[in-house]
Amino acid sequence: MLVGADTSDDAAVYQIIPGLALISTVDIISPVCNDPYLFGQIAAVNALSDVYAMGGSPILALNICAFPVSNIDKKDLSKILEGAASKVEEAGAVIGGGHSIKDQELKFGLSVIGTVHPLQFWRNNTPQVKDALILTKPLGTGVAITAYKKEHISEDKFEPILRSMATLNKYAAASLRDFDVHAVTDVTGFGLAGHGLGLAQSSDLALKIRLNLVPTFEVSIDYMNKGLRIGGTLGNEMSTLEKIKGLENIKNHPKDILFDPQTSGGLLVSLPSKQASEAVEALKKAGYAHTSVIGEVIKSKA
Amino acid sequence: MLVGADTSDDAAVYQIIPGLALISTVDIISPVCNDPYLFGQIAAVNALSDVYAMGGSPILALNICAFPVSNIDKKDLSKILEGAASKVEEAGAVIGGGHSIKDQELKFGLSVIGTVHPLQFWRNNTPQVKDALILTKPLGTGVAITAYKKEHISEDKFEPILRSMATLNKYAAASLRDFDVHAVTDVTGFGLAGHGLGLAQSSDLALKIRLNLVPTFEVSIDYMNKGLRIGGTLGNEMSTLEKIKGLENIKNHPKDILFDPQTSGGLLVSLPSKQASEAVEALKKAGYAHTSVIGEVIKSKA
Repeated sequence: MLVGADTSDDAAVYQIIPGLALISTVDIISPVCNDPYLFGQIAAVNALSDVYAMGGSPILALNICAFPVSNIDKKDLSKILEGAASKVEEAGAVIGGGHSIKDQELKFGLSVIGTVHPLQFWRNNTPQVKDALILTKPLGTGVAITAYKKEHISEDKFEPILRSMATLNKYAAASLRDFDVHAVTDVTGFGLAGHGLGLAQSSDLALKIRLNLVPTFEVSIDYMNKGLRIGGTLGNEMSTLEKIKGLENIKNHPKDILFDPQTSGGLLVSLPSKQASEAVEALKKAGYAHTSVIGEVIKSKA
Repeated sequence: MLVGADTSDDAAVYQIIPGLALISTVDIISPVCNDPYLFGQIAAVNALSDVYAMGGSPILALNICAFPVSNIDKKDLSKILEGAASKVEEAGAVIGGGHSIKDQELKFGLSVIGTVHPLQFWRNNTPQVKDALILTKPLGTGVAITAYKKEHISEDKFEPILRSMATLNKYAAASLRDFDVHAVTDVTGFGLAGHGLGLAQSSDLALKIRLNLVPTFEVSIDYMNKGLRIGGTLGNEMSTLEKIKGLENIKNHPKDILFDPQTSGGLLVSLPSKQASEAVEALKKAGYAHTSVIGEVIKSKA
């Protein structure tokens, strides 16, 4: 076992023979939109992301579906599976079956296996001092999904968020192969603060994030400014707050963006600052238009 | 891909390099008993079973936990994980982390990866005519779990069922390596009828089951005779009934036993009838005391 449960990394990495390691991950989510095909796509992209965050290539996926027997259209279920299959195929992997369980509320996800060279995978806890921190997708999916479900924000305002969540991190990971990447994680349920702290956890380093540089969805900021808070944000804040300094200096930005739980978020990358602007350009070219340097890795004063 | 979603087999099998194939499976269940440690064990044994049914060895597992945040004791969660870990260790595999999701009702399971030689794995759909059919664990867990939850059948009557569900199919699979096994499946949610039909599905064969030879839990038969029917049994009956002949000849046995959904059931094995009695002895010796020849493979008249 190269990466296990002890480092809060994105997935398990297990060397199966010399030169070949398996990446194993599983992720299940509740519906994030009304379109079942798109939900299937986003659930798949979200589950596949952990493999990309480790620098690997997905090879095999299994569907995991929990659904209310009495209260779901079988056509919707098929659409979810079709959507997931489309993204698994785009990832270059195959679906090998799946598992269903009865549930009161619909949930869907995938168990994914990927491969990586044991000497070439990316850890989440090996950034180096003076590295630049790059984020490849805007933050704010958590509050936006809730706002969409509760208040029916218009489809056209939600559309960029859906598009971002349905975008594989595959092309970002491929672009990053040209650079001396030190550490990577994907930003998901624990938000930027939680996954950022994961990046710094096993070292004597800290992350200096410039909130005005962090890419965000405009509509998400609007809802945060209106005071909409979701449970996940509160939980993420509670579990990270004591390790964060300087929150009191934040002006003109809702600090909630640090804690907003992301579905199918982008990659948070630590690489030499000299390579940062070239890497950002490469990532933008690869389709991640909002990619930005959001800070740097510094020595911890703790 | 050697075995995919198209044959209703127990898990996906994917050749990763010459001489090495991966088996991938995922299984999640609702609680089957009040003891969280034992529930964790049974959920793990249930999830690991698919790997053994394919003739493989588990190497890596991820926990999947869906639980109500407000309504669960964290100690219970720890116990579930400990129970699962104990069985993953007994299986010779490691746990590489896991995934949690909020849910209204507790559910737990694992995603499991195993390995097998691409030329040596067992399919579920390759029995041969005149094969003997062997079942390694008694049937009746479905109705018993429901009876236990609803009517609180005594712990001592439920104990043999718990013990059976907590027994890995590992030792059965190992014993079977000494015989010319033609096909294997594990009997789980679709019951003996459903998984039996899976065995016969891709051939011109049929299974002749002698119900009086099928091992069953006494307390389960009692509840079936009292008229207790569970949803899973009804569903399994509806989806298999038209492919089953001779049900009208059954006397002195509740036919429900054919359809009862199993949790962590035994292996249903098809092998040359000449080897049957020796195989039964080996399986009994390996700890599966109720192992029995339950029928044979015949030519289909359809």
